[in-house]
Amino acid sequence: VADLILRYPPRAVRSRVHVAPGSLSQVGAFVLRASGARRVVVVTDRRVAGLYLARVRRSLRAAGVMVDAVVVPSGERAKSPARLAALWDAFAGFGLGRRDAVVALGGGVVGDLAGFAAATWLRGVPWIVVPTTLLAQVDSSVGGKTAVDLAAGKNLSGAFHQPAGVLVDPETLDTLPRWQRRAGLAEVVKMGMAIDASLFRWAETQAEGLARGQTDALAGAVTRSIRAKARVVLADEREETGARTALNYGHTLGHALEAARGYRGLLHGEAVALGMRVAASLSERLAGLSPESRARQDALLDRLGLPRRLPPVPIARVIEAMAHDKKRDARGVRWVLTPRIGHASVPRLIQHGLVTAACREVGARV
Amino acid sequence: VADLILRYPPRAVRSRVHVAPGSLSQVGAFVLRASGARRVVVVTDRRVAGLYLARVRRSLRAAGVMVDAVVVPSGERAKSPARLAALWDAFAGFGLGRRDAVVALGGGVVGDLAGFAAATWLRGVPWIVVPTTLLAQVDSSVGGKTAVDLAAGKNLSGAFHQPAGVLVDPETLDTLPRWQRRAGLAEVVKMGMAIDASLFRWAETQAEGLARGQTDALAGAVTRSIRAKARVVLADEREETGARTALNYGHTLGHALEAARGYRGLLHGEAVALGMRVAASLSERLAGLSPESRARQDALLDRLGLPRRLPPVPIARVIEAMAHDKKRDARGVRWVLTPRIGHASVPRLIQHGLVTAACREVGARV
Repeated sequence: VADLILRYPPRAVRSRVHVAPGSLSQVGAFVLRASGARRVVVVTDRRVAGLYLARVRRSLRAAGVMVDAVVVPSGERAKSPARLAALWDAFAGFGLGRRDAVVALGGGVVGDLAGFAAATWLRGVPWIVVPTTLLAQVDSSVGGKTAVDLAAGKNLSGAFHQPAGVLVDPETLDTLPRWQRRAGLAEVVKMGMAIDASLFRWAETQAEGLARGQTDALAGAVTRSIRAKARVVLADEREETGARTALNYGHTLGHALEAARGYRGLLHGEAVALGMRVAASLSERLAGLSPESRARQDALLDRLGLPRRLPPVPIARVIEAMAHDKKRDARGVRWVLTPRIGHASVPRLIQHGLVTAACREVGARV
Repeated sequence: VADLILRYPPRAVRSRVHVAPGSLSQVGAFVLRASGARRVVVVTDRRVAGLYLARVRRSLRAAGVMVDAVVVPSGERAKSPARLAALWDAFAGFGLGRRDAVVALGGGVVGDLAGFAAATWLRGVPWIVVPTTLLAQVDSSVGGKTAVDLAAGKNLSGAFHQPAGVLVDPETLDTLPRWQRRAGLAEVVKMGMAIDASLFRWAETQAEGLARGQTDALAGAVTRSIRAKARVVLADEREETGARTALNYGHTLGHALEAARGYRGLLHGEAVALGMRVAASLSERLAGLSPESRARQDALLDRLGLPRRLPPVPIARVIEAMAHDKKRDARGVRWVLTPRIGHASVPRLIQHGLVTAACREVGARV
């Protein structure tokens, strides 16, 4: 008989972040600095490949880095187990080794898919994110969450795998459709409401520039959001202590709304904006958020051009979708509430009746 | 412009190991102690399900743990991306949550597949291994390597995910075919040659008991092998510093032999035994291994009933298969050699001509 307890040693993981207008043309030097890789596979989607792949390839080659590329279809459907397996096969075909790296060039879908492939190829190779949507720049590129979707729900399988580097060129937002850029601003408001009151106040002063897509304002939002998010992720990398769950403010309903609509006709950021309106209503009723603070959130969302009323989906179907969320447990669905701006609390179980009432306030059908 | 370096915090990971005859009937209490999970999915294969699933289910239920089960086909083909995705779908169907756990009941194939699914489900849930083959008990259950195979090669995608617990019941080896048990002994010899001279000497004194499948001898081999392997894994969990690569002794040729034969008609342990014979020949020629030590290794392999001569595969095809190994780099294929018993060196590049000559010595066709 033998009884042992093995304690595996800690690992130090380092992520390099660089935000600068025009930096897309320096991606080669950045990849070398962040990962040391002399060979990369760039994963991107059709839309972004047409806009930026040639420039990225040129910069990598100029830095002496060998480049292969995989172009996946645009849109959420690329985040599938089948596409993940196809990436693995492509990496095998390119002979991608342990000291090589994956470069994810695109939005959150490309980042989640390529990051998960990098996390699992040869049990983990370095990856560098070059986010080209506002949503990815302010939120999903930092924190190391990667995933694919299953039929049963979004992001159900995945890995924590911190990128060796995050290179943000705010000028890439110039080619982003206005509605998509606006949706990304929802996550900036979320960072403010959930974890950083000064970011919230700053966004209030910059709302018009942000709504218009002014590069300076957007670059400021990106840098402030990354700093705020990194602080929380550093404290709770794997969502174990609870600190990181604050970032799910607005997301319980947001994810359910997207699911109930089959992920069509509603962008993630738009769904999160609506989720925050409902979460603020619940926070006012249950967590002591002042009516004035709730009104400030809603006014900022209004000024940024984010949606005001829930789309026509039966509430029952949204509640049903929430029950499939990763954040469920046997007793019900947990919500992140905010007692005050910048200070989201740990998630708590909320009865469906209260959720329904709050959804009605935000204009849902019964 | 912003330039940040984020340093993510270390994590402490703990694995509980318990080796005891008859312990299969205590799996319920062990799962609770190791993981605290009140709900598990048992992943097993058809052969093992027929032998042990009812007993495992009973023990889990008696401990108050809810049990679902997924039975996969027996054999290496179950380690596929498609089977991995099917496991994720099954976990979704069972509503497996973050505090629940996966139990892998079976050999190395089941462990690799179920462990990878646990590593990636909801970005990682706890898993417990209950290995039922000697190969899995002495080697693959400890160390946290999980993977699936691709068309391009074995174990190409996977994750490091330490199990919360490893429960070994040496009595399960009684139902193992003799040829499969013998193959598992190759990894015991490997641990001795590569990292633990005292384990090697102990195996020399127990060779007849081990070859006959005596439970005491096998239990001793399992405990000693796990201790030896854990020491190396603790020093180099992710194969970064080089210490862990010692465990690949015999595996460069072993993997290539399996690949060249399409993974048929040759067990992993048998391939590793032949790989060690060739590696010892190279070690004698290139690393100063004494002819006497090499003869001791080969004599022990003989006494354990492990194969003496390479199967009829053209050497050129084996060399070609080595070039696809994960341990390749641009300059060639790296081999782990042993200057003396128990002290494998870091891998070094070996010219194909020398490999061919060593293979001929072990009876290969040109």
